[in-house]
Amino acid sequence: MIFNNPSDICEFYINEVIKQGDTVVDATVGNGNDTLKLSNAVGENGLVYGFDIQEQAIEAAKKQNYKYSNVIFLNHSHADMDKYIIGEVSAVIFNLGYLPGGDHNISTKYETTVSALEKAMKLLAPGGTVITVIYRGGDSGFEECDGVVEYIRGIDYKRFNVLLFDYISRPKNPPMVCVIQKK
Amino acid sequence: MIFNNPSDICEFYINEVIKQGDTVVDATVGNGNDTLKLSNAVGENGLVYGFDIQEQAIEAAKKQNYKYSNVIFLNHSHADMDKYIIGEVSAVIFNLGYLPGGDHNISTKYETTVSALEKAMKLLAPGGTVITVIYRGGDSGFEECDGVVEYIRGIDYKRFNVLLFDYISRPKNPPMVCVIQKK
Repeated sequence: MIFNNPSDICEFYINEVIKQGDTVVDATVGNGNDTLKLSNAVGENGLVYGFDIQEQAIEAAKKQNYKYSNVIFLNHSHADMDKYIIGEVSAVIFNLGYLPGGDHNISTKYETTVSALEKAMKLLAPGGTVITVIYRGGDSGFEECDGVVEYIRGIDYKRFNVLLFDYISRPKNPPMVCVIQKK
Repeated sequence: MIFNNPSDICEFYINEVIKQGDTVVDATVGNGNDTLKLSNAVGENGLVYGFDIQEQAIEAAKKQNYKYSNVIFLNHSHADMDKYIIGEVSAVIFNLGYLPGGDHNISTKYETTVSALEKAMKLLAPGGTVITVIYRGGDSGFEECDGVVEYIRGIDYKRFNVLLFDYISRPKNPPMVCVIQKK
């Protein structure tokens, strides 16, 4: 089955876009599953910036089985990523919503998400890609989703190739994936 | 640029899904661009059924530069594809709308499109895929598009993996691509 889940789409882009030695960003570290994939994709000469406002998430993510010591964990908001990242990046991954198994009151919010997306797009090298998994369920998911999709709809199509992946036949509001690639 | 256009998405699936020797369907032959791609993908031991209700389209499509004589052109409606096709198929491609450069009064219509999609899905082998490019502009495009998307939204998600690709930031209602893969 091709692209059976949002994570298949993320992995496809990780493989297509990221080269060994690249600098990339995990904008929502969570439990570190994507952080590990990014760490493996950029290899020993690459660099992964991992952001999460919850220390609990970063502690969990540090326990993944890393092959390379190429991850910088930052217990800060991804909306501040421009303060920490030097140079251009080839990929930024966002998994919106709240930490699996964590406090549902602490979740990504529309304002900071849009601010972080804007900063991520500015950091992209040509061909670089922002991959965003947008959840529609959850406690604040619906509200955030609508706003984020509207924001993405307005992105300059001359500068970025924007593609939304939607599992439209699935029940219970499955996550969508939005891919923003810099021309 | 990855998936810069609907045709890139079609080509990706043609490469991923179709093996040499397969039987496949071009449900809307048009000028034969997809017919040629399908012919090359299935190779000399494969078979392509090409449907178009316009003789003008089939005549144009026959002029493509085929490497293999593996295409059966049928000047019949794709809604009748089950009458002509024997066995299972690995891929069916639809390019909805009217013939480029042809009569805009002759275009695919909601009722026959949905009937043809249903028949195409029944013909699929496991893993087999229906790829549909849905135009939203044109003379009857909007109306057909809405109906087709609603139909697709109702497909049984337990039997088929349905994924809609939408270039949401582009102006002038760019085509969407819908991929239906049989589990």
